[in-house]
Amino acid sequence: MILVNGKADNRISISDRAIQYGDGLFETIAYRNGQLEFVDTHLMRLAVGCKRLAIPFRQLKQLKEELSIVLTELAEHDAVIKIIISRGSGGRGYLADPSVEPTRIISTYPLPTYPANYQEIGVTARICQQRLSENTSLAGIKHLNRLEQVLARTEWHDPEISEGIMLDQHENVIEGTMSNLFIVKAGELFTAELNKSGVAGIIRAEILDITADNNIPCTETIISKSTLADADEVFVCNSIIGIWPVTCIYNGKINYNYPVGKITRQLQNLLSN
Amino acid sequence: MILVNGKADNRISISDRAIQYGDGLFETIAYRNGQLEFVDTHLMRLAVGCKRLAIPFRQLKQLKEELSIVLTELAEHDAVIKIIISRGSGGRGYLADPSVEPTRIISTYPLPTYPANYQEIGVTARICQQRLSENTSLAGIKHLNRLEQVLARTEWHDPEISEGIMLDQHENVIEGTMSNLFIVKAGELFTAELNKSGVAGIIRAEILDITADNNIPCTETIISKSTLADADEVFVCNSIIGIWPVTCIYNGKINYNYPVGKITRQLQNLLSN
Repeated sequence: MILVNGKADNRISISDRAIQYGDGLFETIAYRNGQLEFVDTHLMRLAVGCKRLAIPFRQLKQLKEELSIVLTELAEHDAVIKIIISRGSGGRGYLADPSVEPTRIISTYPLPTYPANYQEIGVTARICQQRLSENTSLAGIKHLNRLEQVLARTEWHDPEISEGIMLDQHENVIEGTMSNLFIVKAGELFTAELNKSGVAGIIRAEILDITADNNIPCTETIISKSTLADADEVFVCNSIIGIWPVTCIYNGKINYNYPVGKITRQLQNLLSN
Repeated sequence: MILVNGKADNRISISDRAIQYGDGLFETIAYRNGQLEFVDTHLMRLAVGCKRLAIPFRQLKQLKEELSIVLTELAEHDAVIKIIISRGSGGRGYLADPSVEPTRIISTYPLPTYPANYQEIGVTARICQQRLSENTSLAGIKHLNRLEQVLARTEWHDPEISEGIMLDQHENVIEGTMSNLFIVKAGELFTAELNKSGVAGIIRAEILDITADNNIPCTETIISKSTLADADEVFVCNSIIGIWPVTCIYNGKINYNYPVGKITRQLQNLLSN
């Protein structure tokens, strides 16, 4: 089912600024066991993103009503719910007309068919050649300008590799193509600062909260490639996959290997409660 | 008139990767006096951009046929022709399905109603707060990830200001929101290197060719804000506006002022021949 501004439809106007400029944002929400997971946090992030992009999104109530319609249709079927908010249709070049109303798109997809044991036994990742650009005004936002992730994802077709790790312009480790990344070193957690690049993920935020509540030291910092190589544990996370331990990272001809560590397990347990 | 993959239509599927990720490119071509200006150069740039984004675009012949249909419809009416090529519809997340076929969109717009004397008397510009990010893999390409330009263009509504000048992460001058920028100093032309950011414009390329042919020194280099301030002449250019002399640039509380110089005039003349 796809709703565009509340109506069942699967197409939008060519003049929509999502098409013309990638001028919008998205959220990807897991619907499992009849629950729309972390929905309030997703909608909060969407509102913050709209504010940062100066998209005057005043249709949160309608969006929630439309989500209810979609969930009723899904009934008990698990799904991924994707919300796209664009600035709307038209304007004179890059300048949007002040009267433009944002476009709301809600679409549903089957949950991806990742092997269930990825959460148990972990996954293999690789370090991508494609770098993330840096821009404080776009950092952290889940916006529609995703060519860097698309190009990174073109780099491998080996099905044994489940995620690509992306570095910034200074060769520091930021995140996965579709996930955030944490490392554990000497009992402490670290994840990249996202003040210049990256997407501030919902599960990442949840982990920052959980670790604070449980007195597990967790720091947002700069993570170099050698810090990644020397980590005791590594995991990636997002709203759909939860937490995947990373047991091997290909970095050109060198492999970094990690066990599935106890802090990763502890966080998986805390997250599922 | 809008053609989507050769058919009259004004909408595309939600699953198109232009909407989902800004995964595509565009060209904006002037159609004036029955001529599609610099069309071969535009189509060449499109092909190069597709190659750099690994979009397997094999429909150049169809695209040209569709352009003919659009021109026949326009007859003698001047217009802007916008071509969008996206990677196509679908795929599993960032990874496109190998069978995906690119989407071709051709749309026409009235030529913008800029005052005709902008080319004569010049325009006022401003330096934007919004910075351009840097990424060698995207630099120069006219791709659909245009949030930086959109955000830059939200910064002003004063109709006296005709263009915003954008700096990179190192505060160097790169281009306008919709144009490339040249400066003249001591009889020599300079424009920004576009190896890390910016769009390599068709008129910019034309000017590089014209200056080489006419023994006018012209260098692609790094242009600092102080170099811009000290310039003898400044102009911006693109396929629709041609060359606009810039006579004033607002930089916060400071204004930089320039005459409409003779090299700018010489290039306007050379370009129109």
